[in-house]
Amino acid sequence: MANSTKARLHRRRYAMVMAGGSGTRFWPWSRSDLPKQLLPLAGRVSMLGETLARIRNVIPRRNVLVVTGKHLRRAVARAVPELPPESIFCEAVGRNTAACVGWAALEILARDPDGVMVVLPADHIVTPLAAFERSVEEALAVADTQRVLVTFGIKPTSPETGYGYIHARERLGSRNGALRVEAFHEKPSAPRAKRFLRDRNFYWNSGMFAWRADVVLEEIHSHAPRLARALDEMERARRGKRIAQSAVDRVYAGLESISIDHAVMEKSARVAMVPAHFEWSDIGSWDAVADLWPRDADGNSSRDPVIALGSKNNLVATRGKPVALVGVEGLAVVDSGDAILVCRRDRAQDVRSVVSALDAAGLGDLK
Amino acid sequence: MANSTKARLHRRRYAMVMAGGSGTRFWPWSRSDLPKQLLPLAGRVSMLGETLARIRNVIPRRNVLVVTGKHLRRAVARAVPELPPESIFCEAVGRNTAACVGWAALEILARDPDGVMVVLPADHIVTPLAAFERSVEEALAVADTQRVLVTFGIKPTSPETGYGYIHARERLGSRNGALRVEAFHEKPSAPRAKRFLRDRNFYWNSGMFAWRADVVLEEIHSHAPRLARALDEMERARRGKRIAQSAVDRVYAGLESISIDHAVMEKSARVAMVPAHFEWSDIGSWDAVADLWPRDADGNSSRDPVIALGSKNNLVATRGKPVALVGVEGLAVVDSGDAILVCRRDRAQDVRSVVSALDAAGLGDLK
Repeated sequence: MANSTKARLHRRRYAMVMAGGSGTRFWPWSRSDLPKQLLPLAGRVSMLGETLARIRNVIPRRNVLVVTGKHLRRAVARAVPELPPESIFCEAVGRNTAACVGWAALEILARDPDGVMVVLPADHIVTPLAAFERSVEEALAVADTQRVLVTFGIKPTSPETGYGYIHARERLGSRNGALRVEAFHEKPSAPRAKRFLRDRNFYWNSGMFAWRADVVLEEIHSHAPRLARALDEMERARRGKRIAQSAVDRVYAGLESISIDHAVMEKSARVAMVPAHFEWSDIGSWDAVADLWPRDADGNSSRDPVIALGSKNNLVATRGKPVALVGVEGLAVVDSGDAILVCRRDRAQDVRSVVSALDAAGLGDLK
Repeated sequence: MANSTKARLHRRRYAMVMAGGSGTRFWPWSRSDLPKQLLPLAGRVSMLGETLARIRNVIPRRNVLVVTGKHLRRAVARAVPELPPESIFCEAVGRNTAACVGWAALEILARDPDGVMVVLPADHIVTPLAAFERSVEEALAVADTQRVLVTFGIKPTSPETGYGYIHARERLGSRNGALRVEAFHEKPSAPRAKRFLRDRNFYWNSGMFAWRADVVLEEIHSHAPRLARALDEMERARRGKRIAQSAVDRVYAGLESISIDHAVMEKSARVAMVPAHFEWSDIGSWDAVADLWPRDADGNSSRDPVIALGSKNNLVATRGKPVALVGVEGLAVVDSGDAILVCRRDRAQDVRSVVSALDAAGLGDLK
């Protein structure tokens, strides 16, 4: 391919980064105005910052759209100061992923009728970089040339019951690694998850996608007519380069909350999957963070100074504050400066209940 | 008794409060320059402050001597600002209780040849106040009129193996509640402690005493001749109201470390015991603090805002910082602002080992 063609292709690539999650499972680090994606859970910068760094080589910087909540605009700008303000798109209310994918597709289509976009949650762990870049290149190429909706399938390494699964085996074409998707499966029961793992034609649904902006809008028109009408209304409110925020807010208010998976992917006949070459985790709770951080011989994970006496398999997250553990096992110990969590790691999902209980305890300012 | 006689008796009363302990078991609250007695473990003020408040009605304020370590002078003055500087006596090196009891007796004898003193550790819990005052009055009266060394015996409520025991049954006289002491017993084995508890003539040795200054010095001369010679040397260095600090420091350097119990009480024939009317605890570790603080229905003790989900019998000590507990049991969770301890309560004694490990962990400034 000539260099000029390559450069033209590169210029057509966009990324939409979904940074609207409100996550309560990382309390006390996470707050209503500082959700998981803005926390430095994996590296030294926020997960959103890491996500943006991850696509630097494959997506032109000015072609990155970050969609987040209105109440998070300032926190996003603070967490990722290198992000130009015009790249931030704010929802007054969250309406799951279908609405924001449609909105982003409209904005991208207005910039380039041949725009092809990758959709990435801002709060996933992906390594190594080169493998990720290869998968994105592959997915964008398939999406562009085959005019299909492409998902990234993760090869399961355990019978996870917390993820959706994709069933795929037939190759889409001879010139790429993409597979035709047979079906999407919701979070399975434990025995079903075990069967999926053994079968080898099942993949974890990563929630990452690639498609041409025009193709995903066509599919929304075919399978989600109410959302399509709403998007048409928004498009009529375009003021030059962007749709007027007031129109977005008004239309959003009337939308149902539905994921792009439910609204389109599970219904469309034009769905393909690229098996991911990278390692992936959506780190859903403090428990999962332990796998990311340095671990001592007794399985205690931390980036902070820890003295562990007769203590095993604990996670310590204190932003630098020294911690001593004596005779404890399987705990998450988290300090945010203004609050402390001590939680059994196998009950890390229950941290949501702590957040729910804050108001009644007179600690609503820690939400 | 005529009021003037009563007042004369009152003026002869002295208290020596021992505030030299270095305690490492309350880390991270306690530090080498902020030991247990300077911490607000029981109430809102330091344990030393509470000890001084406790004797306010029975000992004239100017007759209180606080003996502490030289390195603690400033911390003591900060913890108890109401204490006049001339009431603080500092040891350059600690030499257990025999040496400082002797020194204090010399200083009291110089002020009043009929001085009678109560000796109190600064880090004990004693309630209620009226019962304590009654016991002190009784002990001082017996010490003064009978010219004996009086200990306070605590009626055991459990077969404690961590305390020394006093065996006493015969009454000393008909006009007071004091008993003649038959023997002192070191910390017993568990079966022995159970026997002591059943016997009813055994008492916990509280480490609190009362005696005339001249009587305790006589007994030191009889049973601890080396200490007696050292005290004589110190007395020769008296400059007006006080013995010169330089002489105290020099003499102390050559002294052996020995408790007043070993040096004198266990050898003297002039020993009596007053059964205490008060509740007493020497709260030896974080575990014991749980008994002092407000407790929720699940046995979680704290003075701080705590959200406890499926959590039982924990102690939280965070100086006001909110804590959430999820699925944990029998833990002590302690925050000092610059460090956190998470410790199984039944291993609270091992907190000393944490302090020993600080240097190797590069955290020596937290000692």
